[in-house]
Amino acid sequence: MARVLVLHGPNLNLLGTREPEVYGTVTLAEIDRMLVERGKALGLEVDCFQSNHEGDLIDRLHAARGVYDAVVLNPGALTHYSYALRDAVAAVGIPTVEVHLSNIHAREPFRHRSVIAPVAVGQICGFGPLSYLLGLEAVAGLLRGGRGKE
Amino acid sequence: MARVLVLHGPNLNLLGTREPEVYGTVTLAEIDRMLVERGKALGLEVDCFQSNHEGDLIDRLHAARGVYDAVVLNPGALTHYSYALRDAVAAVGIPTVEVHLSNIHAREPFRHRSVIAPVAVGQICGFGPLSYLLGLEAVAGLLRGGRGKE
Amino acid sequence: MARVLVLHGPNLNLLGTREPEVYGTVTLAEIDRMLVERGKALGLEVDCFQSNHEGDLIDRLHAARGVYDAVVLNPGALTHYSYALRDAVAAVGIPTVEVHLSNIHAREPFRHRSVIAPVAVGQICGFGPLSYLLGLEAVAGLLRGGRGKE
Amino acid sequence: MARVLVLHGPNLNLLGTREPEVYGTVTLAEIDRMLVERGKALGLEVDCFQSNHEGDLIDRLHAARGVYDAVVLNPGALTHYSYALRDAVAAVGIPTVEVHLSNIHAREPFRHRSVIAPVAVGQICGFGPLSYLLGLEAVAGLLRGGRGKE
Amino acid sequence: MARVLVLHGPNLNLLGTREPEVYGTVTLAEIDRMLVERGKALGLEVDCFQSNHEGDLIDRLHAARGVYDAVVLNPGALTHYSYALRDAVAAVGIPTVEVHLSNIHAREPFRHRSVIAPVAVGQICGFGPLSYLLGLEAVAGLLRGGRGKE
Amino acid sequence: MARVLVLHGPNLNLLGTREPEVYGTVTLAEIDRMLVERGKALGLEVDCFQSNHEGDLIDRLHAARGVYDAVVLNPGALTHYSYALRDAVAAVGIPTVEVHLSNIHAREPFRHRSVIAPVAVGQICGFGPLSYLLGLEAVAGLLRGGRGKE
Amino acid sequence: MARVLVLHGPNLNLLGTREPEVYGTVTLAEIDRMLVERGKALGLEVDCFQSNHEGDLIDRLHAARGVYDAVVLNPGALTHYSYALRDAVAAVGIPTVEVHLSNIHAREPFRHRSVIAPVAVGQICGFGPLSYLLGLEAVAGLLRGGRGKE
Amino acid sequence: MARVLVLHGPNLNLLGTREPEVYGTVTLAEIDRMLVERGKALGLEVDCFQSNHEGDLIDRLHAARGVYDAVVLNPGALTHYSYALRDAVAAVGIPTVEVHLSNIHAREPFRHRSVIAPVAVGQICGFGPLSYLLGLEAVAGLLRGGRGKE
Amino acid sequence: MARVLVLHGPNLNLLGTREPEVYGTVTLAEIDRMLVERGKALGLEVDCFQSNHEGDLIDRLHAARGVYDAVVLNPGALTHYSYALRDAVAAVGIPTVEVHLSNIHAREPFRHRSVIAPVAVGQICGFGPLSYLLGLEAVAGLLRGGRGKE
Amino acid sequence: MARVLVLHGPNLNLLGTREPEVYGTVTLAEIDRMLVERGKALGLEVDCFQSNHEGDLIDRLHAARGVYDAVVLNPGALTHYSYALRDAVAAVGIPTVEVHLSNIHAREPFRHRSVIAPVAVGQICGFGPLSYLLGLEAVAGLLRGGRGKE
Amino acid sequence: MARVLVLHGPNLNLLGTREPEVYGTVTLAEIDRMLVERGKALGLEVDCFQSNHEGDLIDRLHAARGVYDAVVLNPGALTHYSYALRDAVAAVGIPTVEVHLSNIHAREPFRHRSVIAPVAVGQICGFGPLSYLLGLEAVAGLLRGGRGKE
Amino acid sequence: MARVLVLHGPNLNLLGTREPEVYGTVTLAEIDRMLVERGKALGLEVDCFQSNHEGDLIDRLHAARGVYDAVVLNPGALTHYSYALRDAVAAVGIPTVEVHLSNIHAREPFRHRSVIAPVAVGQICGFGPLSYLLGLEAVAGLLRGGRGKE
Repeated sequence: MARVLVLHGPNLNLLGTREPEVYGTVTLAEIDRMLVERGKALGLEVDCFQSNHEGDLIDRLHAARGVYDAVVLNPGALTHYSYALRDAVAAVGIPTVEVHLSNIHAREPFRHRSVIAPVAVGQICGFGPLSYLLGLEAVAGLLRGGRGKE
Repeated sequence: MARVLVLHGPNLNLLGTREPEVYGTVTLAEIDRMLVERGKALGLEVDCFQSNHEGDLIDRLHAARGVYDAVVLNPGALTHYSYALRDAVAAVGIPTVEVHLSNIHAREPFRHRSVIAPVAVGQICGFGPLSYLLGLEAVAGLLRGGRGKE
Repeated sequence: MARVLVLHGPNLNLLGTREPEVYGTVTLAEIDRMLVERGKALGLEVDCFQSNHEGDLIDRLHAARGVYDAVVLNPGALTHYSYALRDAVAAVGIPTVEVHLSNIHAREPFRHRSVIAPVAVGQICGFGPLSYLLGLEAVAGLLRGGRGKE
Repeated sequence: MARVLVLHGPNLNLLGTREPEVYGTVTLAEIDRMLVERGKALGLEVDCFQSNHEGDLIDRLHAARGVYDAVVLNPGALTHYSYALRDAVAAVGIPTVEVHLSNIHAREPFRHRSVIAPVAVGQICGFGPLSYLLGLEAVAGLLRGGRGKE
Repeated sequence: MARVLVLHGPNLNLLGTREPEVYGTVTLAEIDRMLVERGKALGLEVDCFQSNHEGDLIDRLHAARGVYDAVVLNPGALTHYSYALRDAVAAVGIPTVEVHLSNIHAREPFRHRSVIAPVAVGQICGFGPLSYLLGLEAVAGLLRGGRGKE
Repeated sequence: MARVLVLHGPNLNLLGTREPEVYGTVTLAEIDRMLVERGKALGLEVDCFQSNHEGDLIDRLHAARGVYDAVVLNPGALTHYSYALRDAVAAVGIPTVEVHLSNIHAREPFRHRSVIAPVAVGQICGFGPLSYLLGLEAVAGLLRGGRGKE
Repeated sequence: MARVLVLHGPNLNLLGTREPEVYGTVTLAEIDRMLVERGKALGLEVDCFQSNHEGDLIDRLHAARGVYDAVVLNPGALTHYSYALRDAVAAVGIPTVEVHLSNIHAREPFRHRSVIAPVAVGQICGFGPLSYLLGLEAVAGLLRGGRGKE
Repeated sequence: MARVLVLHGPNLNLLGTREPEVYGTVTLAEIDRMLVERGKALGLEVDCFQSNHEGDLIDRLHAARGVYDAVVLNPGALTHYSYALRDAVAAVGIPTVEVHLSNIHAREPFRHRSVIAPVAVGQICGFGPLSYLLGLEAVAGLLRGGRGKE
Repeated sequence: MARVLVLHGPNLNLLGTREPEVYGTVTLAEIDRMLVERGKALGLEVDCFQSNHEGDLIDRLHAARGVYDAVVLNPGALTHYSYALRDAVAAVGIPTVEVHLSNIHAREPFRHRSVIAPVAVGQICGFGPLSYLLGLEAVAGLLRGGRGKE
Repeated sequence: MARVLVLHGPNLNLLGTREPEVYGTVTLAEIDRMLVERGKALGLEVDCFQSNHEGDLIDRLHAARGVYDAVVLNPGALTHYSYALRDAVAAVGIPTVEVHLSNIHAREPFRHRSVIAPVAVGQICGFGPLSYLLGLEAVAGLLRGGRGKE
Repeated sequence: MARVLVLHGPNLNLLGTREPEVYGTVTLAEIDRMLVERGKALGLEVDCFQSNHEGDLIDRLHAARGVYDAVVLNPGALTHYSYALRDAVAAVGIPTVEVHLSNIHAREPFRHRSVIAPVAVGQICGFGPLSYLLGLEAVAGLLRGGRGKE
Repeated sequence: MARVLVLHGPNLNLLGTREPEVYGTVTLAEIDRMLVERGKALGLEVDCFQSNHEGDLIDRLHAARGVYDAVVLNPGALTHYSYALRDAVAAVGIPTVEVHLSNIHAREPFRHRSVIAPVAVGQICGFGPLSYLLGLEAVAGLLRGGRGKE
């Protein structure tokens, strides 16, 4: 059974209470539950981890080598400046799908640019918690051996 | 039964033959078939349309009002400059999901910016034909009445 | 009797139904009627044409040579990138007044720049349908033989 | 009877003698006369004021509150940098129409940007003295209660 | 007894009536009264002056040499372009504290940059009329002989 | 009694020894003591925390919800790039005053821009340790129920 | 016998009548005749096509696959923004020579950049109708099997 | 006898006392005396005027038409933003020489650009009071009928 | 018989040995021979000169006045910064055709801009040694008395 | 015996396994061993430390004061945005040599700029592990009392 | 007797014949004669040198150390990019006055910036050959011991 | 025995006398001697060459092919604009180490960018004459067959 690591970046622990008009009312624990469940349905074992520390996220990515087959990564605001996280994604070489709750391309200009995207397989944003589920589906598709040839 | 319009922009008719190292070998007809099928599974009636003419895509979007419940749009290279297409998306007011075969954020700088994204619900890119299927899933989720609260 | 061609660009056919908080509730047909009427009062024969196709607008401008004495042009979103339309305006050499319903200088940054303006006689924007009527008045003044010396 | 204040910025007192190839040969006094006359025809009482002092124009705008129903403003070169004048327009809250004799969008790049426009109702430029008359017509239309619905 | 000059730039005379959602409902006269009172409590003699004329503010700064020990300056919109006012501040050599009612760094991009700040001792913004009082406290601290070593 | 959290970012622990010509000779412990004392005089209970870790500052902000009524934040060099810290400030929703010892607008260009400021109530900079005390006064004023109406 | 497609973009149909001081007095029909003739001399069968519609030019390029051995393309003003045309050139994979009548690098700044050039074999501009003939010579050279080794 | 107007902009009245390490210790009165004297030697009648008000400088330039044969202008900090002053120089059509005490190209970046220079005959900067004298010599040369052919 | 000067800039002497994947394997001597030969066929006397010294190329251009009827110039990397060479081309007034072996518009961004092009008749690039031959044809056409009217 | 601290930033722990085509196959442990050894030969006691946490690196730099005589710092991707690390280097005042395995100036544009370099003694990059050894030699030279005068 | 070196950069040897509408009809030899003569009147021994080679100008500047008391430098187009010439001026430490025949600030944008100016005493431009004579006067003034205190 | 060419660019001949606070007091001859000596110790034969002429440096690089095994290059100010020198380095294909006496990343912004660096093996800057010695060590390491694996 393939294993997937879901990484949540800074401030995502506040989900459901933080700026609900932007991020909705579902909590991170609920999202994690949904992901584990949907993972089962897709034949994927899903582990979730959140941290407000760039270094912790990098450490966790390093430790994922040889353990996980894919990563679903919501880098939070690190998306826009953490070249260290980007290098970690590139270095560990595990296929990584970048997801965002909000449509970052429709918000402040500084949020339009992702320094992570160039080393990710792809990006999914704007669908709230659904973004994560789509990210998991994407991972499932990728691991099935292609990008749409089924 | 909800109806979904899938719009393909310029050059996508060449899919499967055009720069396969970037865009893969699946043809547009195959993608359309997959989408119709997956649509059925999701309870969605899917129609597909491709044009190399910006004006045709705009006309088709206008005609979609009152007929379709959602749009999956791959604007091709119009993504990067067609403010007219953007205004059409905003004007018709049908929820629209932007999809791309390739990870536009990992290619030439001019492809990083989408003038369509700010008026779309969200963006999915980088997964090849799978991007379209995820777009359809996103539409299904949106039409079910939320963005992940199921 | 002098003849004036009024050209409406992409999405203007949706007028009255599209984003009424930005563009108001008057329809394009109503605007055309007002223009024809006001034209009569000003001694001008007015013809109106709308298209969502850049190429159609260019074709129509080409065909206007030797037929029309002036053009009132609302290029819609083509305002911001269609150098081809700009070249058409410059090439046919008919005095052209650029009009916009909304105050483009008070909206998103990309709307502040008009690539058409440098080859137009002048620009009128921000007055809703009144912008068109003022454009017609401007044309009448220009054709009377000056820009204010009456 | 509605009252309209026409404000002319720096160097407009030289009109008719200054760079006639750009600004024409009509003098400011002649323009003021035309505006008063046309005002009468439109049922508007028109007062005109010119100054080369940014501070005077701001003082005059402040004093216009409760006295004038609309302003026609040609800020001259202050158009391009006087955020103080812009704030005055926004602060007094009287509907203001920005006018220019020349087509500022067809001249030196620094003239393309108006810092006033974002707080004006609209902008009219490029028609010589006719720009002012169109500005007055615009004001008349606005005061009649709409932007074209007559 | 140390003397402090409070200088208010363009449009601040409208305070309390101008855009209250941005600037509040306290009038400039009330602010001036508060400043004189608080000044007394701090052992400072406070004089206040407002002008919409850049030149008047510069003249007043020049006249302050040898008379005032510190300046509290709200340059209004001149903040963003008046290099002449900046040079005046630098030239007279009186310690100057820049204050703003609104948080200029949270408004339109053009308001983020102050050309005055590099020659001021410091900047206080975002606290409404309280900004002025804090500015006066800052002056009191500075004149007591240090920046916090008490 | 209202509670205030004072947060010091990276390198501020070195205060008093680090580049004294820029930052002065007062130590952070002395500043903290001054703040606690001044807080008492103002009826505020003040707690202070310093960290060189972005993640620690974010964690501490999260933990402040429901405990503190206001935050005085000196983000150190994180001011200029930590969108994660910015999101934390916005997410916890506690009124936050940004302070800096030096006048950041008078130093290297990269220090002129604060990514934190747009989500803070206001900014105070340039007064050395006094900046903190003014920040505390600002908080006191804000908590008294207004921004200067006392 | 090798076949060459000559594509003319928007406004080139006006050649000979449009801005003759920039584009000369030769008509497009004359240019086409010259090209067919010169083609014969070079052993090339030449077909010519003009359109003001971006979509038509793309359609024609698609249809050229398997039919033509090379393309001579004057994209007109589409040169500067049509990424869709660019993608078409790249997608069909037929060697394409970009030509311009005027020296685009000596005109307005927006004309200096060609979005087509990076996917063309080369660019020839500034020689009037001669640019086309040189483009045909270039094609002949390329088809002979090299770029100058004869 | 030809007449020359010397105009000094904002803050130049402080000369000799303001930032002597940048501007030297000679006062403006001394410079004016030198200029009148040197003017006599060159057969020029010299009048001098200083103001901190942009509007005054413009008024004075307007009044110079028909009275003065040339202008020596030190716009002070207005150099960098006063398009109104620039337009005045262009409008009155009197040959104008721009002078600066300091070498503006060797100071802060914002001082490198003069918005006045494009409408002046030439610019002289960096020589302290000598800049004015050289400006007067330049005027003398220009009025003698050439730019160096003597 | 008309005379043509062919000028080769820095590093072109290495042709055939330098980065053959970019510049091909033909040597400069071979190109010169081809040009002389093709010149004869076209009735042109061709002289060739190469230097790695900007000054030598300028000297040679100066000496060409009154001797040569046209210049074919490959400025090498000087293309991108040598305003001195540009001024030389403009100053000598001999019609000059700019050529490049590689398609400079498809390489590193710094190679997209030619400071020479605005003063050349036209530019030919991307065809390897054939670029030179096309340049010679262009010259022949220009000298025959037109740009395509034959 | 002088002491040197070698600091390795994020992702350098992966050395030897991460993107070997960019970073080579030597591990960090091997580099540390080489550095200790070479240090002995140079009379330097070398300690090495790696962390993926910006805060840890800053803490370690702070703790180095009074303990180490010099620092060799490879900031990893923090090089490009960590102003906090930069301030730490400047604050502790220990001579610091910045090293990089790869030639950062030959990679993606965002890697060309180091925010650390302006406060370092110098920068060495592009030589793989040898960069570190050269950094140590540089330190040895600096500590010997000069920069080359031996 | 003080000695002055006059250095003329690339293309100035063509003076009098090159683009006379920009540079006039006086030859360089005539200018040199004027300078020697005027030098005598001012008690200065003047030597003149022209080269189209950046390296020659640098060599000549180096050789001027200990020989000349001042330099009058017209760098020609090197003004805009030759940092090597700039470093030479800074390195030799002889007071240098930059002169230009034309008003570089009124020409193409690339000519507005001088990389030489920041290391020159001052700049004089726009007066044709008179610029040189004013440069010599400036030198005379500087050598007399001040910048206007005579 | 391997051979190394050391190339010094413009103004480096002045070393020891030029701006000693930036470049130190060691002369170029002394540096050359140190390099030859250290070369011997490293088993390298070292030749040194300095020129103020870009063309000479290029010629010398060309002549180095087949003679030298590596180059140590200090391009002086050519670093920042000489694309011709860059192309020479790339063309000759000899491993080249770029060195600078000063830390170019800590000086004026224009010195931060090296157009040479992208084609060099690596860059060493900021260590005074020691930079050259480290460059030689780097060359020795490279020639030994690796970048640190010894």
